Amino acid sequence: MKRLLPLLLAAPLLLAQAPTASPPPSLANTSADQIIAAAPASAWAAIDPDDIMVMDTAAGQMVIQLAPLFAPAHVAAIKALVKAGRFDDGRIVRVQDNYVVQWAAKPLDGKEPVSQPPDVREQRVRAAPLPAEYERSAKGLAFTPSPFKDTYAEAGWIAGWQAARDRKAGTAWLAHCYGTVGVGRDMPPDTGDGAELYTVIGHGPRHLDRNIANVGRVLAGIEPHAALPRGTEALGFYKDEAQRVKIARVRLASQIPGFPAWQMMDTASPSFAQVVQARANRTGFFVRPAGAADLCTLKVPVREAK
Amino acid sequence: MKRLLPLLLAAPLLLAQAPTASPPPSLANTSADQIIAAAPASAWAAIDPDDIMVMDTAAGQMVIQLAPLFAPAHVAAIKALVKAGRFDDGRIVRVQDNYVVQWAAKPLDGKEPVSQPPDVREQRVRAAPLPAEYERSAKGLAFTPSPFKDTYAEAGWIAGWQAARDRKAGTAWLAHCYGTVGVGRDMPPDTGDGAELYTVIGHGPRHLDRNIANVGRVLAGIEPHAALPRGTEALGFYKDEAQRVKIARVRLASQIPGFPAWQMMDTASPSFAQVVQARANRTGFFVRPAGAADLCTLKVPVREAK
Repeated sequence: MKRLLPLLLAAPLLLAQAPTASPPPSLANTSADQIIAAAPASAWAAIDPDDIMVMDTAAGQMVIQLAPLFAPAHVAAIKALVKAGRFDDGRIVRVQDNYVVQWAAKPLDGKEPVSQPPDVREQRVRAAPLPAEYERSAKGLAFTPSPFKDTYAEAGWIAGWQAARDRKAGTAWLAHCYGTVGVGRDMPPDTGDGAELYTVIGHGPRHLDRNIANVGRVLAGIEPHAALPRGTEALGFYKDEAQRVKIARVRLASQIPGFPAWQMMDTASPSFAQVVQARANRTGFFVRPAGAADLCTLKVPVREAK
Repeated sequence: MKRLLPLLLAAPLLLAQAPTASPPPSLANTSADQIIAAAPASAWAAIDPDDIMVMDTAAGQMVIQLAPLFAPAHVAAIKALVKAGRFDDGRIVRVQDNYVVQWAAKPLDGKEPVSQPPDVREQRVRAAPLPAEYERSAKGLAFTPSPFKDTYAEAGWIAGWQAARDRKAGTAWLAHCYGTVGVGRDMPPDTGDGAELYTVIGHGPRHLDRNIANVGRVLAGIEPHAALPRGTEALGFYKDEAQRVKIARVRLASQIPGFPAWQMMDTASPSFAQVVQARANRTGFFVRPAGAADLCTLKVPVREAK
């Protein structure tokens, strides 16, 4: 034990008896971070700025990557809403602990975004019916399987996304994990119109997979939103307008001059395979590496381009 | 779609296009709740009030069940700290997004609870060395296996706890899920003294299983703590004393006259087996039941006794 002290002195924050998620590279449990830092340029893929949605709220800025590969109609609808300014002056309407933060565009009639009477919602829904893009054909998609068991399906990565597939049915879909962005819907499965979105702020609700249109993921800025007060009404809805967090504006990154370029790690690259192994076999602080990691733990590295 | 409206009118909140976690019993996706509500008294087990820790912070009250079955030395140390009032005027020192909320007792020298210089921590640690209770012998423990695949181990329940086991090694341990409470430690595995605890507020970090002393779970009141601002320093530590949330007092439920009695569902009961199946096969809102659920999703129902 004494021998460890000089090492620990170099990183005093680690002394606070912490289960460590991403400590500095000089200490243990960092090999995934080291691999990411050392990955060659070829291991990174550019994210199209037209697929990045930038949401400025009273809590902070959330940067979201959209996934047209998996939900083309929903993503097109969301982009149209963004370009029409429909999310501007929208509200975060719901925060349910260990589940979701949900926000809404302003309805067409100019009323406040939620708790609309059913006839208003019915009207909005009928104005923009969308297909139930809960899964898609796996044809033509390169699938990198996870080397570890998955409770729900065959898990892996497609084009930089945490995903799963059903080989028999020939289908693939995005997985619901922390930071996943989906489209809220009513009971009928084809009623989500993209004007009400959520992001996951709890244990990956994989039971939502193939039950709702999963349209993207948060690249940055989830923290202040995950830290919003939980709503006190059923399902975590806020009771009063005053509790709803205001959305100042939502734009695509392609509409914002000088907005940083973003990259994601190529999930078919050797670097990503190394990240997966490193996350499954953590060292240093860990006296017994798990030898495995579940899909939601195996996040795809993303970064602002340098 | 029109036909659904009368039903939906009866529950207007559900209209807000929400992925639903626990809607009212009159609608779909509620069979687990219905099973829990209808479970006979024999399906419930009392929780010893001497194993319940009640923490009052500036954010709210958090009720924690301790697990002496799995970490007897740590739980005894924590109870001793509670009885000595060591957590009173302690602080929540760290909130890391998608990971943990961590809090600390006041150190013996009366200084503020964290960022102590290494010599102070060394002194505290040496005063109370504890064994590394990361797993235990499975001998004599009744194990109810999960019917579903687990990425990490053989998953199931032991005496009302989400747990896992290694049949070959003859060991069992508590699983790290949302709301799990563990003991922070330094790099050497035997240095946690119970004076610094954390609870999980993100995707179940199962890689911590068998790497840290898991001592209990939150029964109630995690919400306002999971919603605390994330710390801006490395690992989510708060930078300034002013950011740290004050702990007014921590007591055992057995020390608080009139504190409600708590119960947990007997994980060997038929009712719990039904809950597991219902959570794996959600209906109503769900067009495609998952047919499985992972261990951290399969929480053990707990309630205040009526």
